[in-house]
Amino acid sequence: MLDLSFLPFCAFLGGLGLVCVAFVSAWCQRWRGGFAWDGSLQMFNWHPVLMVTGMVVLYGAAALVYRLPPAWKGPKFPWKVLHGTLALLAFVLAVLGLVAVFRFHNEHGTPNLYSLHSWVGLVTVLLFSCQWVAGFSSFLLPWAPAWLRALYKPVHVFFGSTILMLSLASCVSGINEKLFFSLKNGTMEYKLLPAEAVFANTLGLLLLLFGVLVLGALARPSWKRPDPDFPDSRQVPSSCVG
Amino acid sequence: MLDLSFLPFCAFLGGLGLVCVAFVSAWCQRWRGGFAWDGSLQMFNWHPVLMVTGMVVLYGAAALVYRLPPAWKGPKFPWKVLHGTLALLAFVLAVLGLVAVFRFHNEHGTPNLYSLHSWVGLVTVLLFSCQWVAGFSSFLLPWAPAWLRALYKPVHVFFGSTILMLSLASCVSGINEKLFFSLKNGTMEYKLLPAEAVFANTLGLLLLLFGVLVLGALARPSWKRPDPDFPDSRQVPSSCVG
Repeated sequence: MLDLSFLPFCAFLGGLGLVCVAFVSAWCQRWRGGFAWDGSLQMFNWHPVLMVTGMVVLYGAAALVYRLPPAWKGPKFPWKVLHGTLALLAFVLAVLGLVAVFRFHNEHGTPNLYSLHSWVGLVTVLLFSCQWVAGFSSFLLPWAPAWLRALYKPVHVFFGSTILMLSLASCVSGINEKLFFSLKNGTMEYKLLPAEAVFANTLGLLLLLFGVLVLGALARPSWKRPDPDFPDSRQVPSSCVG
Repeated sequence: MLDLSFLPFCAFLGGLGLVCVAFVSAWCQRWRGGFAWDGSLQMFNWHPVLMVTGMVVLYGAAALVYRLPPAWKGPKFPWKVLHGTLALLAFVLAVLGLVAVFRFHNEHGTPNLYSLHSWVGLVTVLLFSCQWVAGFSSFLLPWAPAWLRALYKPVHVFFGSTILMLSLASCVSGINEKLFFSLKNGTMEYKLLPAEAVFANTLGLLLLLFGVLVLGALARPSWKRPDPDFPDSRQVPSSCVG
């Protein structure tokens, strides 16, 4: 692959993540009535903002902690704490995002968890909770045995990417569903592609771009933290699959 | 990771792929009125069946060709031809699936390409067409220079997984959208979770399981075809990201 240094890429990715958060916030503020925490439709608006910020942007940042060149030297423990803290913050935002939609549904007598979007989203958050607890127990507790860490690490790494992929599928289906719900009457119909639809569709594409770039950065051998047990681990360009 | 042999896994995955095709076909046959090729709603029904069969199941089969143990020995060229042929077949089914939905829209005066589902789906199929042409030009044409193959191979491998991930996001958003379109009136509302909704939601989860298993199989170091240029390529369990 082309030679590319991590830090400029990381700055671009950070900017793209901020653009995603700004887009989803602007969508809800400009076209969907803004925010409140009172069971109203304005409370629902926290759902997309918190899920995008937590399950995509902060989650992606957590995933890339070990790719930062400073993390390659010295003890790994502080970077593990940063990785776990960012992931925990992402999880807390996701739980608040779920509270927002459940309370909105309950206040309006709408059943919860019937759409495929909600099923996939729930599976994603449940997998994420298991991933966090298993990661904490295996890598942060000092008494976790080395054989457990060695056994679990590739599983943790694989599910890290899988959960991000499921988050993206949840976001795309959720934005799509919300636009069909909201853009129904008269000249505002979704199929007439008003400005809101173009804006929110673009948000969906930007989220996918962000996720694909995170997965690409994770898969790039030369950006991997050197592993003393596998000195050649960063020289396997063609057989590592992102 | 636990020791697991590829062939039983492959048999299970093949069975799961057939179940996915059976589910999407049964959904359209049992609840959506069956199939036709005449611009009607029955013509639309070919869209989910052809996209699931092409862009997920056949695509996944094409991606895993080099993991078959017989592909590890002898010349690679016949396996390249098989990989390219399966991918081409997947692409042809995807194009027919697009023809089905475009003709249905055109016959009914519905605009094309307005929803986020359609944007993501179109990007996926366009990327797949570029991937196929670039793969054919680089790996199947005998006069492609070795430096080009070496440069392009990791890009091809990465986009192989990326396109599958985008296909899954397209399928989930498409099934979700179709259920909101179809289940609207009276006791059949989607939010009341009738049998059709449970069935099609389950199809969505099965597709995600199939995709995640394909990505997991691709990422598993011990299932990779030994690469003579990188003899250690199959012994990097912790740093290859799926």
